[in-house]
Amino acid sequence: MHAADPVRSPAPGTCLPVRRAGIDTYRQPVLYLRRGCVVCRAEGFAALTRVRVRCGGRDIVALLNVVTGDWLGEGEAALSDAAWQALDPAPGALAAFAHAEPPESTTVVRAKVFGARLVEADFTAVLEDVLASRLSDIELAAFVTACAGDRMDLDESVALTRAMISAGEQIDWGQGPVLDKHCVGGLPGNRTTPIVVSIVAALGHLIPKTSSRAITSPAGTADVMATMTKVDLDIGTLRRVVEREGGCLASGGSMRLSPADDLMIQVERPLDFDSDGQMAASIMSKKAAAGSTHVLIDIPVGSTAKVRTTSAADAIARRLAFVGEAVGLRVGIHVSDGRQPVGRGIGPALEAHDVLSVLRNAAGAPEDLRERSLDVAGAVLDLLPGTTPGSGRMHARDVLRSGAALAKFMAICEAQGGFHEPGSAPFTRPCPARLGGRVACINNRQLARVAKLAGAPHDAAAGVTCRLREGDRIEPGAPLFEVHAATRGELEYALEYALAHPDILVVAPDAP
Amino acid sequence: MHAADPVRSPAPGTCLPVRRAGIDTYRQPVLYLRRGCVVCRAEGFAALTRVRVRCGGRDIVALLNVVTGDWLGEGEAALSDAAWQALDPAPGALAAFAHAEPPESTTVVRAKVFGARLVEADFTAVLEDVLASRLSDIELAAFVTACAGDRMDLDESVALTRAMISAGEQIDWGQGPVLDKHCVGGLPGNRTTPIVVSIVAALGHLIPKTSSRAITSPAGTADVMATMTKVDLDIGTLRRVVEREGGCLASGGSMRLSPADDLMIQVERPLDFDSDGQMAASIMSKKAAAGSTHVLIDIPVGSTAKVRTTSAADAIARRLAFVGEAVGLRVGIHVSDGRQPVGRGIGPALEAHDVLSVLRNAAGAPEDLRERSLDVAGAVLDLLPGTTPGSGRMHARDVLRSGAALAKFMAICEAQGGFHEPGSAPFTRPCPARLGGRVACINNRQLARVAKLAGAPHDAAAGVTCRLREGDRIEPGAPLFEVHAATRGELEYALEYALAHPDILVVAPDAP
Repeated sequence: MHAADPVRSPAPGTCLPVRRAGIDTYRQPVLYLRRGCVVCRAEGFAALTRVRVRCGGRDIVALLNVVTGDWLGEGEAALSDAAWQALDPAPGALAAFAHAEPPESTTVVRAKVFGARLVEADFTAVLEDVLASRLSDIELAAFVTACAGDRMDLDESVALTRAMISAGEQIDWGQGPVLDKHCVGGLPGNRTTPIVVSIVAALGHLIPKTSSRAITSPAGTADVMATMTKVDLDIGTLRRVVEREGGCLASGGSMRLSPADDLMIQVERPLDFDSDGQMAASIMSKKAAAGSTHVLIDIPVGSTAKVRTTSAADAIARRLAFVGEAVGLRVGIHVSDGRQPVGRGIGPALEAHDVLSVLRNAAGAPEDLRERSLDVAGAVLDLLPGTTPGSGRMHARDVLRSGAALAKFMAICEAQGGFHEPGSAPFTRPCPARLGGRVACINNRQLARVAKLAGAPHDAAAGVTCRLREGDRIEPGAPLFEVHAATRGELEYALEYALAHPDILVVAPDAP
Repeated sequence: MHAADPVRSPAPGTCLPVRRAGIDTYRQPVLYLRRGCVVCRAEGFAALTRVRVRCGGRDIVALLNVVTGDWLGEGEAALSDAAWQALDPAPGALAAFAHAEPPESTTVVRAKVFGARLVEADFTAVLEDVLASRLSDIELAAFVTACAGDRMDLDESVALTRAMISAGEQIDWGQGPVLDKHCVGGLPGNRTTPIVVSIVAALGHLIPKTSSRAITSPAGTADVMATMTKVDLDIGTLRRVVEREGGCLASGGSMRLSPADDLMIQVERPLDFDSDGQMAASIMSKKAAAGSTHVLIDIPVGSTAKVRTTSAADAIARRLAFVGEAVGLRVGIHVSDGRQPVGRGIGPALEAHDVLSVLRNAAGAPEDLRERSLDVAGAVLDLLPGTTPGSGRMHARDVLRSGAALAKFMAICEAQGGFHEPGSAPFTRPCPARLGGRVACINNRQLARVAKLAGAPHDAAAGVTCRLREGDRIEPGAPLFEVHAATRGELEYALEYALAHPDILVVAPDAP
C-alpha cells in the first residue's frame, strides 16, 4: 500500500481505493471518509479538515466530510464530482491522504487583510491557487472582503485585471476595431444587446458578443438568445460565426476567458458586495480576454436599480475607464434612466418576443426598448475612430428601420445553428389593481422576483409582462401585470407573492 | 403534500420525506437532493444554493449538495448530521424547501466591510445569526476579515465582548475574588495550568479553571488532564468540584460559555488571522462568562512563538487590559520567554508526567516548568486585593514545596472522578544529531509538528520528549529528541519528517 516515492509518501497504511460519492458540491472538492477509518485515526482528520489527496500523478486539496452512515465502508474513500474530475483516477486506483499545508498565496491574502498594497504578481499567485482549488471558499471570501470597499486603489484594480486576463485564454481577432458593450446592473427587460449587436454588425463592424446566463435575475442575454437559437458554442464555432457575420450572440459560459473571475464571482455573489475595484477588474478582464478594443458601458441609474445615484455611477465610470484604458481598451460610458423596467416582458422568451418585435418594426413594439437600443448602438458606433459624435444613432436608426438589422439577427442565428420562434407559457393570469389611480413608482427588484417565482429563467417561457409605466392611469381591477408560468403551481406561487406585496406597482389614487 | 399554513407554504409539490445522509459536515447544515428531482426543478436549485428547510415546527438554512449518484432517490431528501440535529424530524416527516433569504445581519456584515463602526446591538445581531446557522461560512469569513487588522477599535472590541458574553450561559460563583489565567499562543510543553491551579487552590482561593482541547497544537490543557482524570463535566458537577476544592481542571468544550466565539474560531482558525480585536473579545468573553473577576494573561514572546516581539506583546496586553476592565475584570499581564519549549514532554501524557514530577518535587523534575509555574502562580496571587507585590511567588513556592499543591491536585482529580497515572507509548525511538556542537536554536513550531505527526493529541501517549535547551552541548549521534508513538507506522512517519527537517534543533559545530 506504500506509494513508490518514499519521500513523498505519507504515513504507511494511509492509502485507500477511491470511488465516486455521486455528490455535486459545485467547485469545492470534497473527500468522504468513514468515521473511525484507519486514515482518520492515523492522521487525526475530522470534518472540514483540508486533506491533500494524491492519486496517480495528480494531487488536489479537498475538504473532508466524515461519513457517519454505512453507505461508505472503512476500507474505501469517496470523492465529490469536482474532486473526481480533478483527480481522474484509474479504475481501482489507490489514493494517499495527508494534511494539506496552506497554499503559498495565503500570505498574500493575509498581507491584503492587514493593509498591504498588492502588485500583479500577488494577484497572480492568488488566482493560480483559486484556479487549482487550493484556496478554500473561506480564504477566498477573506480575500474578496479585504479588497472590497475602498481598499483596492486604481493601480491595484489594474494589476488584478492584468492578472485575470493572463490566467485564462485570450482571443485575437487579427483585425480591429472590435466592438463590445456591457450593462452594469441589469434592469428587468432591458434586453438591448441582441438589437445592438444586430445593428452594429449590419453596419459592417466586428462585435463578437458573449453574454452570461442569469445569475440572480429572471433572465440573462444568453437565456433570451437560447429561446431562439443555439448559444453554447465552442471557440471554433464562435470564430466561424463572427468571420461570416461580423457578430455573434453566444453564451460566455463555456469559454475560458478570465476563468478566475468566474470562480471569484461564486464567492462575491452570496456576499453581494458592490465592490467597484473588483467589478472593474471582472468586466474589463473579460472584455480584454475576448479581444475587444472598444467597449461601451451602460449604467442604468435608479432607486431600485443596482446603481442608485448619478454620483455612484460617476465613480464607477471613472474606475472602469481608468482600468479599461490601462489594459488597452477604448472605453465609452452611457448613463441611462434605470427607474423602471424596459420593454414588456421579464423572462427569457417574453423578452425574446420584445426583441423580435423591435427588430421586425412591429406596430406595437415597445418604444422604450427600441429607443434605448438605438441610444446604446449609437454610443457604441460613436466609439469608432473618426466618427462624428451623434452620427452613430442616425446610422443605427436607419439599419433598424430598413430591416437590415433583422436580417443580420436572423443570419447570426442561422450561423449559430438555426432560428426558431420563442415559445409561450401554458398558464397566464393577471394581477389586478386594487385601486384606480396613477402609477407612482415601480419596484424593479420585486417585479423581477415575481418573474423568478413564476419559474424564470429555468422555465424559458415563464415570467411577467407589464405594460404600465410611471404616470400611466389604471382602473380598479385592471391588470397591473400578467404572470406566465409552465405549471399551475408556480403561477399560484408567484401570484401569492405578488398579492402579499401590494407596493410592486404603487398606484396613487386620484385627488378627490 | 401542502403545508397547513397557506401563507408560509412554498410552491405546491415541493415537500419530500427526509432521512439522514450519514455525513458529518461539522457545523454547516447540508441538504442533499437528487439531481433533477421535483424540488430542484421547481425551485431552480443548484449545488450550493442556500435552502430554507422547514419540518415540523422548525426551520433551518442549509447548503445544497446535489446528488448525482443513486444512493438518494428523486422522491426523498437527506440531511447532514448538523441539519438533522437542528431539525430533529419525526419519523416519516415531510419537509418543505424554499430559497433562503439572506439573514438580517448580512447588512451589518456589509456595513463593517464598508468601514462602519459597529455597536453592541450590531454584534449581537451577527452572533445570533451565527448561533442559528443562518450566516454561511463565507459570510462569517467576510465578517471576521472586515474586523481584522486594525479595523476594530477598542470600543468595538468591548462591544463584541459584551455581545459574546450575552449570547451564552454565564456562571455566577456568588463570592469573589474568582481567579483565572490564560496563555496567549501556547509554547510546546508549557503546561503550567495544572500546577498553577493546584497552588492557588491550595492557598484557599477560588480558581474554577476550564481549558480547551488542542486545536492546532499537540496538546491542550484539557487533553493533558484527560490522561489523569475526567475532564468533561457538566456544569453541576463543575460547581460541586469547585465548591469542595476551590478549583477545577475541566474541559470548557461542553459548557455553553460564549458559544458564538467557538463558532467564529472555526472560521478564524483556517484563516490564521492574529487579529488582536477578536482575540481580546474571545478571551475576555470566556473569562467573564465563566464568572472570573481577576485574570492573569501569560504572553510568551519568541521568534517561533505566536507573539514574536515585545512590542507586539505590549499592543496585545494593552487591548486585553482595556477590554477586560471594561467588562469588569481585573487583568494582569505576564510577558514570558517564549524562545524554546518548556518541560521535557510534548503531547498529552508526556506533559502530564512533567506536571506530576513538578508537583511531586521529584529529583529530576523539569526546572523550567517549575519556575514558570511559580512565576505565573505568583502573578495570579499578586492580583488579589491588598497583596504586597512579589509576595505571591513566595507563597506559591511554599505550597509547592510542602506537598500541599500536590495534595490539592489529587483532591481535584478525585472530585472530578478519580486520578490515574498517565500512560506511556509502546514505540519510542530517538532522532540522532548528525553533528556535534552546541544547540543554537529550537524551532517550536516544527517540534510541535513532529509530535502531531507521531499521533498527539489523538493518541494521548504520543509525542516528543526533548531535554536539550539553547546552549547545551551535544555529541554526534546522541539523541536530539525522542519520538513516542502508538503505532510503528506513526513513529516512522514522524521520524521521516524530522530527518527531512534538520533545522528543528540547529546545532552549531564547535569552532575548530
